[in-house]
Amino acid sequence: MTTPSHAITVGLIQKACTGDRAQNQASLDAAIRKTAAQGARLILLQELHDSLYFCQTEDTEGFDLAESIPGPSSERLGRLAAELKVVIVASLFERRAPGLYHNTAVVLDSDGSLAGRYRKMHIPDDPGYYEKFYFTPGDLGFRPVQTSIGKLGVLVCWDQWYPEAARLMALAGAEILLYPTAIGWNPADEAAEQQRQLDAWITIQRAHAVANGLPLISANRVGFEDDPSHQTQGARFWGHSMICGPQGEILAQAGTEETILTARIDRQRTEEVRRIWPFFRDRRIDAYGALLKRYDD
Amino acid sequence: MTTPSHAITVGLIQKACTGDRAQNQASLDAAIRKTAAQGARLILLQELHDSLYFCQTEDTEGFDLAESIPGPSSERLGRLAAELKVVIVASLFERRAPGLYHNTAVVLDSDGSLAGRYRKMHIPDDPGYYEKFYFTPGDLGFRPVQTSIGKLGVLVCWDQWYPEAARLMALAGAEILLYPTAIGWNPADEAAEQQRQLDAWITIQRAHAVANGLPLISANRVGFEDDPSHQTQGARFWGHSMICGPQGEILAQAGTEETILTARIDRQRTEEVRRIWPFFRDRRIDAYGALLKRYDD
Repeated sequence: MTTPSHAITVGLIQKACTGDRAQNQASLDAAIRKTAAQGARLILLQELHDSLYFCQTEDTEGFDLAESIPGPSSERLGRLAAELKVVIVASLFERRAPGLYHNTAVVLDSDGSLAGRYRKMHIPDDPGYYEKFYFTPGDLGFRPVQTSIGKLGVLVCWDQWYPEAARLMALAGAEILLYPTAIGWNPADEAAEQQRQLDAWITIQRAHAVANGLPLISANRVGFEDDPSHQTQGARFWGHSMICGPQGEILAQAGTEETILTARIDRQRTEEVRRIWPFFRDRRIDAYGALLKRYDD
Repeated sequence: MTTPSHAITVGLIQKACTGDRAQNQASLDAAIRKTAAQGARLILLQELHDSLYFCQTEDTEGFDLAESIPGPSSERLGRLAAELKVVIVASLFERRAPGLYHNTAVVLDSDGSLAGRYRKMHIPDDPGYYEKFYFTPGDLGFRPVQTSIGKLGVLVCWDQWYPEAARLMALAGAEILLYPTAIGWNPADEAAEQQRQLDAWITIQRAHAVANGLPLISANRVGFEDDPSHQTQGARFWGHSMICGPQGEILAQAGTEETILTARIDRQRTEEVRRIWPFFRDRRIDAYGALLKRYDD
């Protein structure tokens, strides 16, 4: 038994991917070992880390990449989690039934068990990001996963644009917000637009930390991936993975290279920050009804 | 009739206040004229601009500052709005009935009429900001105010920490988010904490613009105001008023001095931004029910 501590080191892995699944997994496993060696007790992986971002096109062969959960990937990562005594948050393409697939984050606890899963609730769809073709919207709701190091509010990529998702995780007791993600620039966009998009992405995630008084970890992919259909100019994944404290302060942030990032998070800070900024005390739940509407017209 | 245009110049006034109400009003009126002369068709004033921030202490004499709406201040500002042909968003201490007061924003249309009001919904209370003593929580909900230049989503200060408030205004059709505010540093806090607080405040407001694809204007006060009770070290209002575009990009921002800020807002950008980031399309309203709970335990 280690002494309980309010502070833990958390880590994330920001990587480029290739079309070779075995190679992606081998380099990921090596990076997980390195991150653990740097003291991380919680390690977040980026979205769909075992493959290229296959949603650039709609192709039924893409479903061959999916696997069941539990399954080979969750079991391999579970063994690694147990060996290294770390909690791993991974991102898998889940095959639930024939013709029924999800974009699912899995949480492997430090004893190797599957502590829980989260099925991506908000599914994007725009040119080069055809996720509505592949992923059935999640049906497990916004429920944090209990682990040996606390309740993890795991969300995935497009969820990161929704304050509702972060708030619901916080209301359900999440102690850390985590976002595996795969987002990049469209090379056809001008530089100013690319900068606005990156800034917006950083800003809104920091704001989820602020609004909820929670630390936050976001792991993004890097590298250029060509569009197999050549209908777009491909995607340049913008990296900038980050670890924030509960006032949205950036504790560590990557650039656009492959990076292992670690930072020390003091979970006691949430209590302190929520005492000086008691947003939860003053929510006007009597007047929030229209949040459940599509549009209030 | 002027030609309709997607772009308008908006402005805000960031000021220090004194204990002399007539002086505050005279300097404010002069600043409004200047802002209009710079081409602003919409002018946002800071929170409780006619007085010192009286909520530093709980004192029943503070209620003497309140007035009815319509009343002398809304009428004076209405005349000014009509003369200058601008929309003015002001912040008043509303006396609604004996013993019933609100922190209320009023919208004066460019014909001088009172287009509508918003009563602050989220009321803070912490040492030096004893607002729960003075202000009954708003009972008008989160409804934008229709004006000659569009639907204004007016919120006030503490509301700015709540993604729910901004979202509700957007769902109800707001075209611009506006925040009169009065927030400052506690001089007793260390510099790093002060910086985190300011950054968090800027970040979360920019994020409301991002989440909703709306431009945003936030007007804060500046200057040091002593605590009459000497129980705290007073408040140093941190300024940094800003105008953002619908991707949260800062178009103009003040520092800690008295400032008139203007920027050009292109309302057509909201349509464009919401097409590339269609967050409203994908909200999981079927799974947001717990947003109406105090805590999901």
